[in-house]
Amino acid sequence: MTKEELIQQIKKKQSFLCVGLDTDINKIPKHLLQLENPILEFNKRIIDATKNYCVAYKPNIAFYESLGAKGWEILQETLAYIPKDIFTIADAKRGDIGNTANMYARTFFETYNFDAVTIAPYMGEDSVKPFLEFKNKWGIVLGLTSNQGASDFQFSELKDGQRLYEKVIRTTANWGSEENLMFVVGATKAESLVTIRKLIPNHFLLVPGVGAQGGSLEEVCKYGITKDVSLLINSSRGILYASNGVDFETSSSEAARKIQSEMKTILENL
Amino acid sequence: MTKEELIQQIKKKQSFLCVGLDTDINKIPKHLLQLENPILEFNKRIIDATKNYCVAYKPNIAFYESLGAKGWEILQETLAYIPKDIFTIADAKRGDIGNTANMYARTFFETYNFDAVTIAPYMGEDSVKPFLEFKNKWGIVLGLTSNQGASDFQFSELKDGQRLYEKVIRTTANWGSEENLMFVVGATKAESLVTIRKLIPNHFLLVPGVGAQGGSLEEVCKYGITKDVSLLINSSRGILYASNGVDFETSSSEAARKIQSEMKTILENL
Repeated sequence: MTKEELIQQIKKKQSFLCVGLDTDINKIPKHLLQLENPILEFNKRIIDATKNYCVAYKPNIAFYESLGAKGWEILQETLAYIPKDIFTIADAKRGDIGNTANMYARTFFETYNFDAVTIAPYMGEDSVKPFLEFKNKWGIVLGLTSNQGASDFQFSELKDGQRLYEKVIRTTANWGSEENLMFVVGATKAESLVTIRKLIPNHFLLVPGVGAQGGSLEEVCKYGITKDVSLLINSSRGILYASNGVDFETSSSEAARKIQSEMKTILENL
Repeated sequence: MTKEELIQQIKKKQSFLCVGLDTDINKIPKHLLQLENPILEFNKRIIDATKNYCVAYKPNIAFYESLGAKGWEILQETLAYIPKDIFTIADAKRGDIGNTANMYARTFFETYNFDAVTIAPYMGEDSVKPFLEFKNKWGIVLGLTSNQGASDFQFSELKDGQRLYEKVIRTTANWGSEENLMFVVGATKAESLVTIRKLIPNHFLLVPGVGAQGGSLEEVCKYGITKDVSLLINSSRGILYASNGVDFETSSSEAARKIQSEMKTILENL
């Protein structure tokens, strides 16, 4: 999907919500467990319940990989079920030397046909660039993450005064363009968006950490939104596990609709 | 496998060689392609040809993941074929927030029963620690990698004078022990081993980059070896693709034996 197409979807749906499909067999409603493929069935029902309110889905690959070969089949069937006009992100956080990075890129872009893959930056240019060489596909580099451990290295102050995450964003931005490169910036670090928007005024940001992790939609938008929006705000647990009753779809749908409604207000005031 | 058991294997075999099972369907001998499962068959023959000369096998997960669900079955069958006294490393370079890191750890340690997993450090403590909580299992953190892109961030000079890779190694070492934590240090940066051994005098290092990438076994041992050896030197392409003829096993076996022989000499002079 191109940047223009993604922006069109955002405007059409009045939403920049990404739903994280971090489906955990231990957390899904119990009545699904009697079905042949509970995780796939859950995913399909969540997609049906939320597809009108979101513009992206983001399966975290760990949740599928942990199931062995079967998990990869579920991932593929889940992807096939997602409507074609919705952006798909493999939250894989891969990063390896050039020829291996290329193999990861082919896996997610060709074998699974995702629109985007998240990438860990520690190994540098040859670990990132292979993801940027696929037409209408995206690399999403970890800039500043939403977890507590982000403070261990990402905030390290460099000799020239910048923080490591600033250097990562500044440097990586040169390897791609606004058309094939996004950054992960955690909602729990909203005030850092002021610094980040100086470095990359227009790049799309994928923002986890709203909801369960404590980040605020308003704060993120205050500092991070652009005239083209350029934000994808992710919510996983708050939507997936809004209820574990037999009518969980209704609760998940309502949770997604509520966020979309807040986004609509923000977009109207942009 | 415990540290003591690994050291015993090294002494018994007079080898600290790790064979990287980065099996690429486009590079294996053509006569295998007519078999039902060429990659598994190649792996089995390579294991038979090299198991007396190495103490570890390291499949790079990208090579299996790229094949979809089938690739994970091949990985599992490959692991089942590796003798139980040989150390196994999932070269996966995973790293994610705590609950997800735990899921990756369970995948590789429980679903696949690897002894060790490589980990990307950018997301900090909660992305690393879950890998260190499994009995007799190992996390292997990227310290200083062998690729060109290592210079982009890993060598960044921090305000306090240390390089980022030094901070990563120094900090991460506190999260585990010499019994459950190793570091990746590329052979192409052998002189940095002097600095690294000051930080972690006894930790095992997994060293890629000897051979195809240009690193030298002698240089690595000169700066990195300890009284307990504490090195695993990886070779992938140089052994796997030593020949693509019908007798490739002989060439691979000879390539592994040659490295083992050099290691034996080094160990005798230790």
